Amino acid sequence: MPLRPNRPLPLATPAGVEVLTRILTQGPIPRVEIARRTGLSQAAVTKAVAPLIEAGFVTDQPVAVPVDDVGRVELGIGRPVSPLTVVPDSISVIGLKVTPTDLIGVTTDFRAGIRAVRHQQVTDTSAESVIKRLAELAKELIETLDDPADPAGPLIGIGVAVSGDVDALHGVVRDSPFMGWRDVPLAALLSEQLKVPVVVSNDVRALTVAEHWFGVGVDADSFAVVTIGSGVGCGLYINGEVVSGAHGVSGELGHLPLAPGELVCTCGRRGCVETVASSDAILARVRETTGQPDLDLSGAIELAHDGDEHAREAFDRAGEVIGSALAAMVNLVGPELVVIAGEGVADYDLYDQRMRQAFADHAFGAAGDCRLMLRSHTFDDWARGAAATVIRSYVRGEPPLTR
Amino acid sequence: MPLRPNRPLPLATPAGVEVLTRILTQGPIPRVEIARRTGLSQAAVTKAVAPLIEAGFVTDQPVAVPVDDVGRVELGIGRPVSPLTVVPDSISVIGLKVTPTDLIGVTTDFRAGIRAVRHQQVTDTSAESVIKRLAELAKELIETLDDPADPAGPLIGIGVAVSGDVDALHGVVRDSPFMGWRDVPLAALLSEQLKVPVVVSNDVRALTVAEHWFGVGVDADSFAVVTIGSGVGCGLYINGEVVSGAHGVSGELGHLPLAPGELVCTCGRRGCVETVASSDAILARVRETTGQPDLDLSGAIELAHDGDEHAREAFDRAGEVIGSALAAMVNLVGPELVVIAGEGVADYDLYDQRMRQAFADHAFGAAGDCRLMLRSHTFDDWARGAAATVIRSYVRGEPPLTR
Ligand SMILES: [Zn+2]
Ligand SMILES: [Zn+2]
Repeated sequence: MPLRPNRPLPLATPAGVEVLTRILTQGPIPRVEIARRTGLSQAAVTKAVAPLIEAGFVTDQPVAVPVDDVGRVELGIGRPVSPLTVVPDSISVIGLKVTPTDLIGVTTDFRAGIRAVRHQQVTDTSAESVIKRLAELAKELIETLDDPADPAGPLIGIGVAVSGDVDALHGVVRDSPFMGWRDVPLAALLSEQLKVPVVVSNDVRALTVAEHWFGVGVDADSFAVVTIGSGVGCGLYINGEVVSGAHGVSGELGHLPLAPGELVCTCGRRGCVETVASSDAILARVRETTGQPDLDLSGAIELAHDGDEHAREAFDRAGEVIGSALAAMVNLVGPELVVIAGEGVADYDLYDQRMRQAFADHAFGAAGDCRLMLRSHTFDDWARGAAATVIRSYVRGEPPLTR
Repeated sequence: MPLRPNRPLPLATPAGVEVLTRILTQGPIPRVEIARRTGLSQAAVTKAVAPLIEAGFVTDQPVAVPVDDVGRVELGIGRPVSPLTVVPDSISVIGLKVTPTDLIGVTTDFRAGIRAVRHQQVTDTSAESVIKRLAELAKELIETLDDPADPAGPLIGIGVAVSGDVDALHGVVRDSPFMGWRDVPLAALLSEQLKVPVVVSNDVRALTVAEHWFGVGVDADSFAVVTIGSGVGCGLYINGEVVSGAHGVSGELGHLPLAPGELVCTCGRRGCVETVASSDAILARVRETTGQPDLDLSGAIELAHDGDEHAREAFDRAGEVIGSALAAMVNLVGPELVVIAGEGVADYDLYDQRMRQAFADHAFGAAGDCRLMLRSHTFDDWARGAAATVIRSYVRGEPPLTR
């Protein structure tokens, strides 16, 4: 049952959506520059902007706007051309990230700037239990919106990011091996409890949407977000849009058949990248080769940092297959930029060398000229990604935030 | 030195380009339907169409228009809504395909319909010699345009398709292992001789452009063209456009590291798909395992068809790695449709079973639901692809056919 956002946007035409998207992702931006970049006439831009200003979503007055992801602000004072910006607190959004051990939630403003963060531990990973906890976490976050000292905009929707095969159109988690979920109608169950539109996305896809609208995508014509950690994932931005896959599957870098065929993946297939490159696979390898079956991941990382040969070999092996996977991806789609993110980035020094070597060995010609950028990562960023998917659906008038 | 096409298009705005593209690729199409699909007003559509009709590129009168690739025509008589079509013979285009043994050339009309075909054998693969032969072939084809019994439109440009890493923007073949060429400024050398704009493209990319504008792309939201034969290539159409790669490289399916690491590819890298799946690799394997060093490819194919175990094993091995490569590609980009093309399709029955098995083994979830379509192929189609790149550049006003 789709719910309407409780603060509808006055956007009647595709041109209006295009104009607001430019203001949101590229603002502060003068009207004339929007016209130049979109090919619309200045009159058309002005016509699209007027109701947005009238309704308080956009302003041409100087306001404090965040200039980067870490929340620094600048005051756009005294610019003669009256550049347009969105009013950050004209709306609020909640983003939730689901993992088998934790739920992470954030509230953000219109520009996906994080306002509040809350965590919850997961003890029972059943869909029923997790959805109950998600609803509690969302209610906690909703309460933070009412702070009279720092008033937030009305909540327009909740985004949830889950790893695995997610049918975003219908809000159904089709298959999440990490959670052990199959065909969970997460959006319907959660929106029923909270009476707020809910957008469910694959977690890496959500991160890519955030980069597209509020991160590197603003300046790059094409990019890939590659996540390393408990899984190996990939989001692609090509030809002006995040790649979603005709059947909802794309970017499954962790399940390319690049590892030895005798290894069986958590997905049931043989030879997937994750059979040697996921943090569980690395840990299993270190336990096996060192003969320490009780080691945990931080112990394995410590051993590798201390120069233990067996531990280093497990990370080398992971780095090598990740590098081959990166090469396979750039050979196929040739992005301008590859952002490496995910929990594994914290211990990137352990993968780095072998990964770069394997990448150099297998990247084809000029495909290897893409920039590699490391993105230090927190789980809050995943939740922010979920919020970004809501903002995108809201601006575009896509389900479940249709106009 | 870019030359202007000798029949300029009266297109002044992005909307005009969009309207003509719809008429060209989706016509016969009524004005109202163009407005609906593009989001333009009917007035804007009518305004864009008027100069195109005036100049003879487009008509709303009944004309014979090709309805499919094999050249059947229907007469669009008596339609009350006066659908728009391009006038096929308002322009002519030449497409040339370069291989180490043959040059194939075609002339086409505005809809990439083939009018004439000419071949030339290659004896010397040096760039200088091949370019001389290409110029001769083009002149032969230009003569066919003057047939008074079947008048063709003025020639607007020549497209050349070459395998390898091609810088289409500058018309330079950066690296073509099959031809043994490096940094050949093919467009400049050929257009200097012929005084006609020349567009140079990677051959698989060109084939994908033809499918995008005049083939499966008209009905599919995303697709991949995978070619098997002397090489293994891939063209991708995602998010409304052919994927070109930020540095001009994409779709290098033949150079994904999915084969055993001890095998060295013609590109110099280890473990590329082509080390087991190119026709040369298959032939080398059959020669080795059967102990018949003088066998040629048709001999190897015959042996396999006769059930020779060694010969079959070589094709099985190729099929398996091609299937894994297909799975890797769909796992990453999730196309709706995969068209399998190239010379190897003639002997597809030899790859088929193992290829489909490997694909099924490694395709991730719903990514495996893409349709696989077999496209019987001739070298003329490659040349037609080169013509399609010219038509696209002409309509878009891209180099070297800028307005
Ligand atoms: Zn897997
Ligand atoms: Zn290779």
